[in-house]
Amino acid sequence: MTEERHNPISLQNIRLNDRFWSRRAERIAKEVIPYQWDALNDNVPGAEPSHAIENFRIAAGEVTGEFHGMVFQDSDVAKWIEAASYSLHTHPNPKLEAKIDSVIELMERAQRQDGYLNTYFTVAKPEKRWTDFSFGHELYCAGHLMEAAVAYYNSTGKKKFLTIMSRYADYIDSVIGAHDEKMKVYCGHEEIELALMRLFQATGEERYLRLSQYFIDERGKQPCFLKDEPTFGHLSKTKWFDLDYHQVHAPVRAQTTAEGHSVRAMYLYSAMADLAKETKDESLSAALEKLWDNTTKRRMYITGGLGSQGHGERFTIDFDLPNDRVYAETCAAIGLIFWAQRMLLLSPDHRYADVMERALYNGALSGISMDGKKYFYVNPLEVIPEVAENRHDHEHIQVQRQEWFGCACCPPNIARLIASLGQYVYSQRSSTIYTHLYIGSEGAFEINGQPVVLQQQTNYPWSGEVTISLKIEESQNITIALRIPGWCKKQRIIVNGQIVDNVVIDKGYAMITRKWMNGDQINLNFDMPIELTYAHPKVREIAGKVAIERGPLVYCLEETDNGSDLWSIMLPSESKLESEFQEGLFGGVVIIKGDARRSDNEGWGDKLYSSEKCQTRTVNIQAVPYYLWGNRQPSGEMTVWIRNI
Amino acid sequence: MTEERHNPISLQNIRLNDRFWSRRAERIAKEVIPYQWDALNDNVPGAEPSHAIENFRIAAGEVTGEFHGMVFQDSDVAKWIEAASYSLHTHPNPKLEAKIDSVIELMERAQRQDGYLNTYFTVAKPEKRWTDFSFGHELYCAGHLMEAAVAYYNSTGKKKFLTIMSRYADYIDSVIGAHDEKMKVYCGHEEIELALMRLFQATGEERYLRLSQYFIDERGKQPCFLKDEPTFGHLSKTKWFDLDYHQVHAPVRAQTTAEGHSVRAMYLYSAMADLAKETKDESLSAALEKLWDNTTKRRMYITGGLGSQGHGERFTIDFDLPNDRVYAETCAAIGLIFWAQRMLLLSPDHRYADVMERALYNGALSGISMDGKKYFYVNPLEVIPEVAENRHDHEHIQVQRQEWFGCACCPPNIARLIASLGQYVYSQRSSTIYTHLYIGSEGAFEINGQPVVLQQQTNYPWSGEVTISLKIEESQNITIALRIPGWCKKQRIIVNGQIVDNVVIDKGYAMITRKWMNGDQINLNFDMPIELTYAHPKVREIAGKVAIERGPLVYCLEETDNGSDLWSIMLPSESKLESEFQEGLFGGVVIIKGDARRSDNEGWGDKLYSSEKCQTRTVNIQAVPYYLWGNRQPSGEMTVWIRNI
Repeated sequence: MTEERHNPISLQNIRLNDRFWSRRAERIAKEVIPYQWDALNDNVPGAEPSHAIENFRIAAGEVTGEFHGMVFQDSDVAKWIEAASYSLHTHPNPKLEAKIDSVIELMERAQRQDGYLNTYFTVAKPEKRWTDFSFGHELYCAGHLMEAAVAYYNSTGKKKFLTIMSRYADYIDSVIGAHDEKMKVYCGHEEIELALMRLFQATGEERYLRLSQYFIDERGKQPCFLKDEPTFGHLSKTKWFDLDYHQVHAPVRAQTTAEGHSVRAMYLYSAMADLAKETKDESLSAALEKLWDNTTKRRMYITGGLGSQGHGERFTIDFDLPNDRVYAETCAAIGLIFWAQRMLLLSPDHRYADVMERALYNGALSGISMDGKKYFYVNPLEVIPEVAENRHDHEHIQVQRQEWFGCACCPPNIARLIASLGQYVYSQRSSTIYTHLYIGSEGAFEINGQPVVLQQQTNYPWSGEVTISLKIEESQNITIALRIPGWCKKQRIIVNGQIVDNVVIDKGYAMITRKWMNGDQINLNFDMPIELTYAHPKVREIAGKVAIERGPLVYCLEETDNGSDLWSIMLPSESKLESEFQEGLFGGVVIIKGDARRSDNEGWGDKLYSSEKCQTRTVNIQAVPYYLWGNRQPSGEMTVWIRNI
Repeated sequence: MTEERHNPISLQNIRLNDRFWSRRAERIAKEVIPYQWDALNDNVPGAEPSHAIENFRIAAGEVTGEFHGMVFQDSDVAKWIEAASYSLHTHPNPKLEAKIDSVIELMERAQRQDGYLNTYFTVAKPEKRWTDFSFGHELYCAGHLMEAAVAYYNSTGKKKFLTIMSRYADYIDSVIGAHDEKMKVYCGHEEIELALMRLFQATGEERYLRLSQYFIDERGKQPCFLKDEPTFGHLSKTKWFDLDYHQVHAPVRAQTTAEGHSVRAMYLYSAMADLAKETKDESLSAALEKLWDNTTKRRMYITGGLGSQGHGERFTIDFDLPNDRVYAETCAAIGLIFWAQRMLLLSPDHRYADVMERALYNGALSGISMDGKKYFYVNPLEVIPEVAENRHDHEHIQVQRQEWFGCACCPPNIARLIASLGQYVYSQRSSTIYTHLYIGSEGAFEINGQPVVLQQQTNYPWSGEVTISLKIEESQNITIALRIPGWCKKQRIIVNGQIVDNVVIDKGYAMITRKWMNGDQINLNFDMPIELTYAHPKVREIAGKVAIERGPLVYCLEETDNGSDLWSIMLPSESKLESEFQEGLFGGVVIIKGDARRSDNEGWGDKLYSSEKCQTRTVNIQAVPYYLWGNRQPSGEMTVWIRNI
């Protein structure tokens, strides 16, 4: 049975060596993780103090003081440890490891006798433990700590943190669950479900899987305890924070639309996919298919951003995708990547990988600045600074990336994503190696007891040329499944200099099965023209507009390149656009240039309304990759969608 | 000097006899005013109880109970009395007069010994009198009561209410003002300024003019007492309710942009215009010119609606005019009519009358249903019910007119506007009679001691044909100044069958000066084609869109006539549109029909994003006057602005 398992490549087995990503991963390891360590320790001048480490000291009784921060402040430390643990694979760093060890020891001292570990409830509300499942984030924090413990164990082999978190999980298992005397509850913010699946994978203890399953099966049963049990019920009175906000409006298998807080939703669906894969629960898989379709065909921004409004950081209704009042939280795009990867493992299909890639290169990556030190929480697709600063319905929009947030969920989340990016590149099922992402790397596999190494070279996302070389001791039958990106309309696959015709395409993967030999080489050429993209005509806010894409990248217009009043630019469908690699810009990027029309705003006069139409003239436009917007100063207007004529 | 005064025709001297307006005025008199009386007395089943009359009973000590309603609940009674008083001119009604008398007597009993009259502070917060000038609305309520008193006095000649309010005004004058021992304050919500001007006009007491002048001159001096004096300072902490919300960010003569709560702004500017006219204060006139330009050339919806966001019911920034998240409160359009009329009196110019007419026939009239019983507080220019009901940033949007509101400012405001509409038709300065609006009516004037009567007949706004006949005892030299509407590009003026060539046009008014004889007749023909209207290209939310107008009316598309997904309709600039009078619709209206294109939303498939553009097909569209939208059931989508191709 082990042979049939479908797993992502583990971080031990992959090394990135990529023009695009390696410097980002290095920046995460060398600058972001140290910076975030300082932030967690309140050592970043000018930034909001986090107090996150201090909270653990207080909980451990080593200093006195009050809890500060969000109720889920512990999770910032957890995500940081997780990111730092991943970075140890690529950037071994004994000093960093020692720092993590010191935090783990601090956590051990902060852990209660019974295994409980949460600084907010321990320090600020000891009598309120397990009373606020809607917004208390207790199990959520536990989940992030479990993920961190698994990551640290996988990186270092050290077991202490895993033991701490297993104790905590065992304690949770002793107070929550199906047995009569236990609480029948789950967390308002999903996370522990997927974390318990990871704890199960790391420890092999099936009770963690069962507890995760309990949380998933219990979720959304009606009547709902969040609403009906005053002991636990702290549901907000407004509709934006009602049952669907927490994805508890229906049992999970009966949910068909992506509802509520979008990060919560992503974490739930990720856990459901883990559980469906592990237990082969087809009712869960079927529900996930529906949720996937609804999310990606009705409620997803072109950037992979999720969440159409700030209030409730949530999904709204089908096709409601305003570009300026969007939420598209960085964490939600990251959550979509988590979910997409798990859907791939459940059933390989390029649909999942396409969305994973879209979110990765656009809506997630936009969350972090070029220098790795500034972050977007919200990722708008259109920004007019004057509007964002003056309209109340844009209150949640930041027109520049910020140094750190009081609610600092996104910065460590993007750090852990990039630090662990290798795991998204490949997966293996039996003797099939799936290539999901095109990232320069060396991945090591074991097939029939033999080591197989795939060396990938590419200038992706700027070019669609990819070379994959095999290192193998003895030649053997292997299927290499190469994802044909959804954006690609014409591809060429060459093995050892021979074009492969009649290749079997299975759900968007070219399945190259042969007796592979050492030194075999695959050359992929994915045609990567500039595309104009239109949205479903039901998307009111994008009607009559067009976006520019090239390969996996969504492009945008910035004021710096195109002047202000970006809504005055009209891009004809037949426009000739050209791409150009600019070495000096952002360390080398492909920009897109071409002609468009522009209304002559200055020539209009001073009437507010007129029966004469505004004149237009031809202008040059220049588009840059969306993920880079706002990296130049002054950061002005930006738009992804352009009026189409 | 009296001869040089420029005054609107008084309601005693005009009788409407108009196909369009008379039935509306009649409905106000016969149905709306009785209905609103019931509402004020909590006798409308299903509607939110007003408690407004009950508050006066409690204040008078006649019943016990608590104050209920908004702090400005008294103003609802005031505006109702004002509207009812106007209706007595056209629809004498002794029973109604008796009801008003009973309320006035109740007010007399509720008035404090010192003249103070306010049920909220008397009943609920007696110790807080004169402590909350930002939001307490004390002087605002006083102002509305003064306006009501003047209106009732003008209608009936009865002085009791005028005396009550003069006592109150005298009391206010004794506690607020420039003298050392008095409070240096003004009201957060302007209204008393213009009311005191009316009280001055009715009583001839110049101290009321001086008190109004004090409020206007004091307003916006820095440092501002609302912010800096804790005794009075209840300024909200958010920027949406900061100084500019109350128009106190600068002295009024230094204000150049329309800021803050739009109804407050309109009432202030109206009072400024009254004062400028009365005192010939050119610094005020100059400020008003700037404010007018900013309001009407940068911040006004095509409907004459004002206020671009719900939060703060306020202006935002230049050219920020979203159609769906608009505020455009009915009261603000009414306030704009008040202001425009006063600007006309200050300096006749069709610019003011054009805006007055625009707001009247569109943004104000849309506030009331055909049957006069339902009201819009907010008047959006685009409604997608599913979006309005599901997005938090549309929370303030009602997709149907409501029966009554807890905050019921708009229903009695529209009632008083329509009941007093006659005063907006004509004005007189010396021997010049200005015709501002084309409404079937008979207006009586006195020129050189002789009576002059103008009889106007028209089918406006459906037709641009107007006939004006003179009744005059002795022929005399009179100038009849006929407004050429701004929307009209070609007009013909015929006097006694002769086309008048080389007519002197002075600021948009055709000045016909001659020795007029009894029975002389003027025939006006204003060409009234269908116009496609474009907005200033700086208006981001309307870029690439077009509106349909005909004469003074703005048209809209409704789902009932055009199906859903109205944003999918594209109107070509060269589209052939035709108007058609439909006898059976809304009691007879001109609708507009023609061809447009529509995206084939059903044929698109299930992709959310695609490089293939959506197909389009030709469809028939039908537009109805905007003010009528939402009068058919089910009331669905609506849009004023249509995508233009």
